[in-house]
Amino acid sequence: MHAIGIDIGGTKIAGGLVDGSGNILKELRVPTPSNDPEAIVAAVVGLTNQLAQGESVIGVGVAAAGFVDANRENIVYAPNLSWRNEPFKAKLSAKLDLPVIIENDARAAGWAEFAYGAGKEASHMILLTIGTGVGGAVVSNSQLQRGKFGFAGELGHIRVVPNGLLCGCGQHGCIEQYGSGSALLREAKALVASGEPKGARLKELQESAGELTGNEVYQAISEGDPAALELLAELGSWLGQTIATLCAAIDPEVVVIGGGVSAAGDLLLNPIREAYLTHLPARDYRPKLEVVPAKFLNDAGVIGVADLVRVAQS
Amino acid sequence: MHAIGIDIGGTKIAGGLVDGSGNILKELRVPTPSNDPEAIVAAVVGLTNQLAQGESVIGVGVAAAGFVDANRENIVYAPNLSWRNEPFKAKLSAKLDLPVIIENDARAAGWAEFAYGAGKEASHMILLTIGTGVGGAVVSNSQLQRGKFGFAGELGHIRVVPNGLLCGCGQHGCIEQYGSGSALLREAKALVASGEPKGARLKELQESAGELTGNEVYQAISEGDPAALELLAELGSWLGQTIATLCAAIDPEVVVIGGGVSAAGDLLLNPIREAYLTHLPARDYRPKLEVVPAKFLNDAGVIGVADLVRVAQS
Amino acid sequence: MHAIGIDIGGTKIAGGLVDGSGNILKELRVPTPSNDPEAIVAAVVGLTNQLAQGESVIGVGVAAAGFVDANRENIVYAPNLSWRNEPFKAKLSAKLDLPVIIENDARAAGWAEFAYGAGKEASHMILLTIGTGVGGAVVSNSQLQRGKFGFAGELGHIRVVPNGLLCGCGQHGCIEQYGSGSALLREAKALVASGEPKGARLKELQESAGELTGNEVYQAISEGDPAALELLAELGSWLGQTIATLCAAIDPEVVVIGGGVSAAGDLLLNPIREAYLTHLPARDYRPKLEVVPAKFLNDAGVIGVADLVRVAQS
Amino acid sequence: MHAIGIDIGGTKIAGGLVDGSGNILKELRVPTPSNDPEAIVAAVVGLTNQLAQGESVIGVGVAAAGFVDANRENIVYAPNLSWRNEPFKAKLSAKLDLPVIIENDARAAGWAEFAYGAGKEASHMILLTIGTGVGGAVVSNSQLQRGKFGFAGELGHIRVVPNGLLCGCGQHGCIEQYGSGSALLREAKALVASGEPKGARLKELQESAGELTGNEVYQAISEGDPAALELLAELGSWLGQTIATLCAAIDPEVVVIGGGVSAAGDLLLNPIREAYLTHLPARDYRPKLEVVPAKFLNDAGVIGVADLVRVAQS
Repeated sequence: MHAIGIDIGGTKIAGGLVDGSGNILKELRVPTPSNDPEAIVAAVVGLTNQLAQGESVIGVGVAAAGFVDANRENIVYAPNLSWRNEPFKAKLSAKLDLPVIIENDARAAGWAEFAYGAGKEASHMILLTIGTGVGGAVVSNSQLQRGKFGFAGELGHIRVVPNGLLCGCGQHGCIEQYGSGSALLREAKALVASGEPKGARLKELQESAGELTGNEVYQAISEGDPAALELLAELGSWLGQTIATLCAAIDPEVVVIGGGVSAAGDLLLNPIREAYLTHLPARDYRPKLEVVPAKFLNDAGVIGVADLVRVAQS
Repeated sequence: MHAIGIDIGGTKIAGGLVDGSGNILKELRVPTPSNDPEAIVAAVVGLTNQLAQGESVIGVGVAAAGFVDANRENIVYAPNLSWRNEPFKAKLSAKLDLPVIIENDARAAGWAEFAYGAGKEASHMILLTIGTGVGGAVVSNSQLQRGKFGFAGELGHIRVVPNGLLCGCGQHGCIEQYGSGSALLREAKALVASGEPKGARLKELQESAGELTGNEVYQAISEGDPAALELLAELGSWLGQTIATLCAAIDPEVVVIGGGVSAAGDLLLNPIREAYLTHLPARDYRPKLEVVPAKFLNDAGVIGVADLVRVAQS
Repeated sequence: MHAIGIDIGGTKIAGGLVDGSGNILKELRVPTPSNDPEAIVAAVVGLTNQLAQGESVIGVGVAAAGFVDANRENIVYAPNLSWRNEPFKAKLSAKLDLPVIIENDARAAGWAEFAYGAGKEASHMILLTIGTGVGGAVVSNSQLQRGKFGFAGELGHIRVVPNGLLCGCGQHGCIEQYGSGSALLREAKALVASGEPKGARLKELQESAGELTGNEVYQAISEGDPAALELLAELGSWLGQTIATLCAAIDPEVVVIGGGVSAAGDLLLNPIREAYLTHLPARDYRPKLEVVPAKFLNDAGVIGVADLVRVAQS
Repeated sequence: MHAIGIDIGGTKIAGGLVDGSGNILKELRVPTPSNDPEAIVAAVVGLTNQLAQGESVIGVGVAAAGFVDANRENIVYAPNLSWRNEPFKAKLSAKLDLPVIIENDARAAGWAEFAYGAGKEASHMILLTIGTGVGGAVVSNSQLQRGKFGFAGELGHIRVVPNGLLCGCGQHGCIEQYGSGSALLREAKALVASGEPKGARLKELQESAGELTGNEVYQAISEGDPAALELLAELGSWLGQTIATLCAAIDPEVVVIGGGVSAAGDLLLNPIREAYLTHLPARDYRPKLEVVPAKFLNDAGVIGVADLVRVAQS
């Protein structure tokens, strides 16, 4: 039997009918209506009904960027959706005849990689998604970790610099401020503003585009612009240092790197690997983990949260 | 039926016969013979035979300060015992008729607190032992975490200061260098050496003892010496900051503080609690954890590793 | 003979007729007209003419918050006035019959303290002004240091945290982000936002005022609110650490603390003194410096820049 | 007329007869006898008499690695010579008919570069000597800065990492721990110990030499070994960051890099220049300084301290 996965993003809601091997059989997308929970509930219900039509479905999983409580019933805090303690599962269940689960989107993506993707051979895996922010998921002993209150795997808020840059979480020095796509863009803008000769190509791209965005930075990386590659390598170094610390606490065998910035491939992964090795505690006395790219990009949330429906019922 | 727990420390080996409720029925101690694995095997076998005599015993668990592999068969690296890849389980099993497990001592102590001590109401718990170094154990979903390679819970090697103090693990800036008893002693010595007036009481204690050791520092703390309390509070602050970072990754509901320095009670725990609260990411939107003292001090290893025998067979 | 000093601030321009002992004989203030250099030139000329009327005057000195070049002719960069490479001296000289000098306002204030104030017994002095930002002035061998390009004494941009908070100067981790009045206000707001019980008094003050400003924080400090005092002490600790580093480079005998926040007196100075002593390199082998409050508050710029006219002609 | 300069090093004492243009006319070396001040006084007297024979000499200057007081009479603290408050000038003057001055060796070297070497066109110069430690000298307004107590220019003890590596001065995080030859050797040893493939060449050199010393690291740098060059570049990056901070306080126009490690030339200087530019506060609004190699290597102390005799009498 199939399961439905829905992934609520900032600009669109994606839904998929997913089989028991993690394949998407049917997929639909609609624009994210607004921050109004009721409109989003309606959109999710609409997508679900379309996807379920004529199919035998065991349930629907819904992933969203926000803190989901440990019971997976409420969205405690979704900064982008401006939700606070939203009883999202109850609202969906009231309008759907199917079993419903909700999950944090990075955890759903982590589960997809663990079940069918880059971590499928592993029993202990970490996912880091490098996008606007830094998201995470932890799988230990083949179990997706939620922690006591549903906050496990918020790896973007590991502190890497005491008294460091201010983070949206209210603290200073989180890895999200040093290892995310936003950090990369901030540093690229600073380089252009500095007028240093090595920033010349980024400056050209800024001038021709009117404004420097992730697209221009990505173009410079693709062209092999040395300055852009250096900024990317610095990003990777911070991430590798963070992984070394996570080895002390969690000890995974594989770290999967996903999110938009991971499209840079080994240009990002190699600096991560190097910094990880350099900073690993007791590195002479322990096996090393692997750092690998994610298999699923845009579909990870849909596949993962659909599979979690299956897990919840098994 | 009872189980036997053996805890190999730097100066003595403690053994106990432990019932199914975590009570020690009989206890024996012998000096740690030397760093020779064979002599230690003989001592463990001797203790086990004495404790098992006339009892119905389901197995023996042995805890040691070292990295134990994920299969719990070899001691990969025991800095204090100078062991490398020692096949400790096989050597013990060859001389004992009982099932044998081996475990890292901090993880054994963590399990004792989880099963019968300060964490017994919890499903997600962290233990930090503050002694010469900083040890740790992580219990998630009521499972003791070992990680892929047996290194999970090495919380003393979470990095808190980039380019910070050199640690015995070969890295810089580990919490062990800021939050351990050794760190406290180092800072106390530095204060005395500085000649600052506020270090006067510590200086007196140093002069009367000939050398400043943990005992003198502890005495100054007991007397309420403001400088010693300030150093202890700084120790606690580093630990609280580390716990805040661990919340992002692991999200426990309770953190148990054990080890010799934890004898200072709330003088240590209150600064930990305050720093934890101050540094918790997204602190306005999440439940808080509790920071509590360990229940078992010297016996935690014996009780925990005996109970892990029971768990292994259930 | 007397000299005229003019201090161009963000909201008002103060002018004074100053005698050869640093006494202000006559003082006038007008609102700062706008950021238009011509209007400001006109205001300075007007004040000067009024103050000079019927007096024998050797020249006029003008202080402004901005980088003044080493020749003291141009204002290279004045962030608050939005000036860039403004030939301020030439514009003033064209309209005044008196010799003109221009100077950075913190350096002028530093000179006032050195010549007639808290540093008058010293030959090596540093001034730190703790206001919205952190300003500075260095006097070595009884000479006001300007550096090669006019940037010496920009002590607010000493880096104290690698990869630290972003500063208005484009760099990260400057002491201005940790030791200024703005830093104090930022931390006070964060404490109120956290909802922690110890922030209760600051929260009350915020609610009754509608918004938390420096005034409310200062009121809490005056009342002895423990949380506000703790934030102030942390500010002082950062400043003391910075002074310890400056001892290695410059080795002054006295550090004068001025600026609005210095009104807190020993509540600020004692934490500075303590952190300085704790962090001084080779502290057992060297004399210690003194940390003292500024003598002149609002008038320091006027007195100092008038005296610098005298120095320039001697 | 000529002056005599004597430079007391850890293994040898060098003496030279120096003309009024900074040329060494005659030079002698003897082994440093011991740490006994009397034996060193005798050696200095002997060298002086030999050099002065048949010459018209205005005085003798003696440089040593230690803190020299502001009156240049006593050596307050010389860690390598184990001297404390040694009245060195008085002891020398008692046995010599010439005027005597004493000076810190890095300051003497800085003066040589300022008067006749890489800084001779400048009025504001900083010298950084990168040897076992990091030494410094500051010249502002063409005056060698000594500070109030003789400690100005101790640039190796600028703090670059809060809670960083422990320094011989008793503090943590001094640039000497990150930017010296000792730091380079420490990092090279750590790389070899890590067993990482990129450390292969350094490992070979260690094995063939029996131990890794500065010579082996320098050989790897000379051969273009990428790992050794990377370690050297990191050293340079820390130094460049420190120079950026010194610009805020002192604002020199040229920074001269001397000491044994400076033999690496642009392999060291280019990373310094790059890091300086990247970290300079308000870098878009200010002239840049130059980073140049020292002109004098082993003779800088002799030339500089001889010239300071001349300055003292002019």
